[in-house]
Amino acid sequence: MKLSLQELIDAFRDKVEKYLEGIDTSLHPYDIAEDLLELRDEDEQLYLDELFKLPQELQALVMIELPRHCHEEIAKYFTPNKLASLVNTLDTDDAAELIRNIEEVDEEVAHKVLESLPHKDRENLQTLIAYDEYEAGAYMQTELFSAFIDEQVGDSIRRLKRLKAQKELDSVYQVYVVTRNHKFLGSIPLEDLILLGPNVNYRELVKEGVNIISVKALDDIHDVVEVASKYDMGVIPVTDAKGRLLGRITSDDIYDIIEERATGQLYNLAGVNEDAEQEESLFHIGKYRAYWLGINLVTAIAASVVIGLFDATLQSFVALAVLMPIVASMGGNAGTQTLTVTVRQMALGDISLEDAKETILKEVYLALMNGFIFAVVIGLIAWMWFSMPMLGVIIAASMVINIITAGFFGSLIPLLLQKADIDPAVGSSVILTTVTDIVGFFSFLGLATIILL
Amino acid sequence: MKLSLQELIDAFRDKVEKYLEGIDTSLHPYDIAEDLLELRDEDEQLYLDELFKLPQELQALVMIELPRHCHEEIAKYFTPNKLASLVNTLDTDDAAELIRNIEEVDEEVAHKVLESLPHKDRENLQTLIAYDEYEAGAYMQTELFSAFIDEQVGDSIRRLKRLKAQKELDSVYQVYVVTRNHKFLGSIPLEDLILLGPNVNYRELVKEGVNIISVKALDDIHDVVEVASKYDMGVIPVTDAKGRLLGRITSDDIYDIIEERATGQLYNLAGVNEDAEQEESLFHIGKYRAYWLGINLVTAIAASVVIGLFDATLQSFVALAVLMPIVASMGGNAGTQTLTVTVRQMALGDISLEDAKETILKEVYLALMNGFIFAVVIGLIAWMWFSMPMLGVIIAASMVINIITAGFFGSLIPLLLQKADIDPAVGSSVILTTVTDIVGFFSFLGLATIILL
Repeated sequence: MKLSLQELIDAFRDKVEKYLEGIDTSLHPYDIAEDLLELRDEDEQLYLDELFKLPQELQALVMIELPRHCHEEIAKYFTPNKLASLVNTLDTDDAAELIRNIEEVDEEVAHKVLESLPHKDRENLQTLIAYDEYEAGAYMQTELFSAFIDEQVGDSIRRLKRLKAQKELDSVYQVYVVTRNHKFLGSIPLEDLILLGPNVNYRELVKEGVNIISVKALDDIHDVVEVASKYDMGVIPVTDAKGRLLGRITSDDIYDIIEERATGQLYNLAGVNEDAEQEESLFHIGKYRAYWLGINLVTAIAASVVIGLFDATLQSFVALAVLMPIVASMGGNAGTQTLTVTVRQMALGDISLEDAKETILKEVYLALMNGFIFAVVIGLIAWMWFSMPMLGVIIAASMVINIITAGFFGSLIPLLLQKADIDPAVGSSVILTTVTDIVGFFSFLGLATIILL
Repeated sequence: MKLSLQELIDAFRDKVEKYLEGIDTSLHPYDIAEDLLELRDEDEQLYLDELFKLPQELQALVMIELPRHCHEEIAKYFTPNKLASLVNTLDTDDAAELIRNIEEVDEEVAHKVLESLPHKDRENLQTLIAYDEYEAGAYMQTELFSAFIDEQVGDSIRRLKRLKAQKELDSVYQVYVVTRNHKFLGSIPLEDLILLGPNVNYRELVKEGVNIISVKALDDIHDVVEVASKYDMGVIPVTDAKGRLLGRITSDDIYDIIEERATGQLYNLAGVNEDAEQEESLFHIGKYRAYWLGINLVTAIAASVVIGLFDATLQSFVALAVLMPIVASMGGNAGTQTLTVTVRQMALGDISLEDAKETILKEVYLALMNGFIFAVVIGLIAWMWFSMPMLGVIIAASMVINIITAGFFGSLIPLLLQKADIDPAVGSSVILTTVTDIVGFFSFLGLATIILL
């Protein structure tokens, strides 16, 4: 049953009240954001009004849970001063993301927001915003708990208490030990501090062995994901090129990045763009999809030109026209299987360029196996269907040729793209089906022309 | 440059030594497992020998980083007693996984391993192993730090110290507050304990507000992932149906589950099975791929039967045979775009069955837009190519019909599968291309028969 607008508003306000009064502690700003999005579906102005009425801190937390296009609307509705005060209550990674989203709709507003911030916060955020979205730095937060190597545990804990009292820091988990020049030396789980007396010196702790794994701010974010999942790390320290500690990346960002990478791959293989699909306007979504459909049209026409070469043969044997899509379809399918496995294994780091030969060989073997099986099956079917034994031989031979082609190119194409530093998921499907279509039609109709005419 | 076997062995032993002596603290059992896998490529016996020579604790940690098929080999090579002692040094979630893998090759060995364990550990592991791989319980570890509601912080910290001294627990992060009946009341970050005096009672802390979010052991693991990423949680407490605390799921498992789900979707859409692809034997991989290729063959033949209905028309106009794959190909591509977006959005929880109408409408609008554009383009091309204006009209009309069909069925099929409680990624591609092939050929050749004959 659909709720009326008033019922939606009441449900939303009720949830906010329960959250604020701590009546329902399972409530999270995410839940409030979800309700707001429902309101937005009904009335775009109303949801902004309701968001505006929330208390400052909750407002910021809810806002960061809303999708990007909402940030753009909010940037138009709220004043730069208001936005600046919201930015100030957020963690640095969330604050940077918000400003980046504002920048996309209106650089001037983003500039004004930054101007309204205290000097130190502004500098900090400007550095974060400058990172490219593929760089680790773009996902890091600068709030962390660090201690100097010559410090005592008790002193660092007193500092932690101050930071916590000022609500500057949460989800601490680790203490990062640094030199007086802020060079990162290693991380120590917070639990170890609890077990030690306040007079222990960090130097002794570091001697006993610490986790020295960190990433650089300019590292590819996907390498960071690899480090996190390889070494089972919930939080990863980030340093600059010289090894000075800058910030940390938390598991919630890693979750998002893994999901986004997977979505990107799925979409790229299907000729769809992830960013474009998130747009509100159907026109923008359609435009990007049309781009790949256009490329597919060109390749489909190329395949038709190949068919056109054999029009005399087709005229004599209409059975060829009936059967030829089968050869192309089986090649396309076998190729897509190979392509998908290769692209995904490459993304997960299970296949590298060094394994190229083995990968291709494996796929060609598989293709040989399945190629022969389906060649026999379709050969017999074609023979019986059209009572022409030679037609069975022709389709069987072209099926073997096309499925082997599919296995070979299905694994070769992504490897070649990777070697050329192109994302192997982008465009590889189109290239592959062009190959399997053309080889399928050419081998089938070519063999038929030689044998039957 | 390829290393010789002896060089590989030397590199491996060198790494182990550096790890054991703490010379290179960036080394992780994962790195040692990687080296072992390289050895395995060269000599299957040798890698088992080298693994066997490692000190017990490292052996267990390295083993758990090896892929599943290695566990099966290890189960054959090591004695049940040896395996039991390895299981004993692992965290419960890793231990359960290892026993599950052993069970797959030899139930008797798995049984013997369990028998060799101390009574309490055995019972614990048996419970974990009993969970289905789709259930949260299968991923949880029972090692955790909990405190009773009527306890004082200081007492609980003394217990933590004991647990740590016995190396029973690491990566603590949180304290889970429970009643004397082990009912979960909420989690408190470890950092908060540091800030409090030892005489504070947990009851007071809980009153001030704690994070009460938890999942149930029988919950679908994908719902757990959703909770983790929605609420930005690095570690998630797991309870039984009555709310009693059983264990916790850590971020490294969440990373793996997200990656696996994405791989599963990609593979399912391409007609490939994730488990089958991890097999060593090409025969097993090929068998599963052949299954979907076989289904594809049946549908391709069905499309050919449709073409066969129009053999008289094809005989008269060979141009139709040349052009017909274009209509099918464009429909297939447009449909794959829609299908992929719908399946992925459903998996990410952005589309639910309630949004079915909007989703289908959106896709039909997009199809209308792109359908008309490409209809005009291909219509003009066909007209000029074969100097037959009516051929242009026919292909344009069938193109619109087929792309709209693609948009409609590309979104409807996964929604219907979901409604029928079938994974929308499995089989949907095949159903969709069957529809677009048949509608494409039928509309194009059907219109041609009506108009041209």
